Amino acid sequence: MKIGIIGGAGRAGTYIYNEAVERGHDVTAIVRNKERAQHRLGTDAKLLVKDTYALTREDLAPFDAVVDALSVPWGSGQGFEHLDMAAHIVHLLRGTKTLALFIVGSSSLKVNGQLMYETFDEETAQQPWFDGAQYQYFECVFLQMTPDVNWIAVSPSMAFPTGPKTGYVRGKDDLLVDESGNSEISTGNMAAAIIDELEGPKSLHARFTVRDQA
Amino acid sequence: MKIGIIGGAGRAGTYIYNEAVERGHDVTAIVRNKERAQHRLGTDAKLLVKDTYALTREDLAPFDAVVDALSVPWGSGQGFEHLDMAAHIVHLLRGTKTLALFIVGSSSLKVNGQLMYETFDEETAQQPWFDGAQYQYFECVFLQMTPDVNWIAVSPSMAFPTGPKTGYVRGKDDLLVDESGNSEISTGNMAAAIIDELEGPKSLHARFTVRDQA
Repeated sequence: MKIGIIGGAGRAGTYIYNEAVERGHDVTAIVRNKERAQHRLGTDAKLLVKDTYALTREDLAPFDAVVDALSVPWGSGQGFEHLDMAAHIVHLLRGTKTLALFIVGSSSLKVNGQLMYETFDEETAQQPWFDGAQYQYFECVFLQMTPDVNWIAVSPSMAFPTGPKTGYVRGKDDLLVDESGNSEISTGNMAAAIIDELEGPKSLHARFTVRDQA
Repeated sequence: MKIGIIGGAGRAGTYIYNEAVERGHDVTAIVRNKERAQHRLGTDAKLLVKDTYALTREDLAPFDAVVDALSVPWGSGQGFEHLDMAAHIVHLLRGTKTLALFIVGSSSLKVNGQLMYETFDEETAQQPWFDGAQYQYFECVFLQMTPDVNWIAVSPSMAFPTGPKTGYVRGKDDLLVDESGNSEISTGNMAAAIIDELEGPKSLHARFTVRDQA
């Protein structure tokens, strides 16, 4: 399939790009910085060099699937970009059949029946990751108000380190924890889960989550 | 104050524009169609002729307050524009001190303690106004996820006919109904309520509602 990866040269995006290319898909990395993307993905990588907000309906029209792998640096105070960029992508895809997959953070998952976002207290709100976590939760709420786009959302586990594909376990609304108490998904396993989902969607208009196989 | 009215030559916008001008404010109507705006507001009207999605942070920077008076025709299937245009305006105003007032429809109000949006059934969903009502509810939810913009939302009563300023009654989360059972706010009274709110905000980060004084 034709897959466009917005943020395709980022930490998660690079793994998603490589996983999709390896499986023989026609993949375009949608990036802001051409040199950085070529350095990370190779000089032969298929790129669309454009700021997210400058993307048009025409830019996204060729793709069967679009992945939002954009990230926002912790502590930048720009957490709202998670929501605003997702809103822009949704706007461009309204009424189309394009699959749109968003990585939305873990704060929209439940732990012991309670939404993680709702467990955040004053102290949590001081953490450098809070701003991004909050707006990724808002992003998830926004997607749930989007009946006219074929969106899919995926939450990582508590930790989302850089690492290879080794096998993953899939869940739905509850934070996944393995037998040893670890809640972790590598970028390689996330990439595999994302391309699996695009090849055979099971979570249209819904969110799923993944953890590393122990 | 300097007030920008997006959709300032529309049915509600025209009344808001005239009310603000009458009170001596420095008012700009932000419109798509110059001729239509001059026909409605006069050839000396201060206009910014631009599509909503083409507006930039710089375009909105001069205003102390921005009013979103955009409307979407019933039955157009474009109800999502309520949400998407609000999301774009919010994006442009993030981190600023600008007052941003949005007209968000009545479906986010309560009747007998129940959210109107939640009372909508299959039959309601076939009504020509449903699409717009649904997305105006979503717009209201979106604003509630916006801590970093000085937003204010106002819901009209059940009916929102064109008519003069005659006096209004203000409420908060419940649909207002007068002694005779009418739930109605004229465009003239809505305009007065909006400019009153901008001159002395009482509902920052909140939604209020208004009805005609019987």
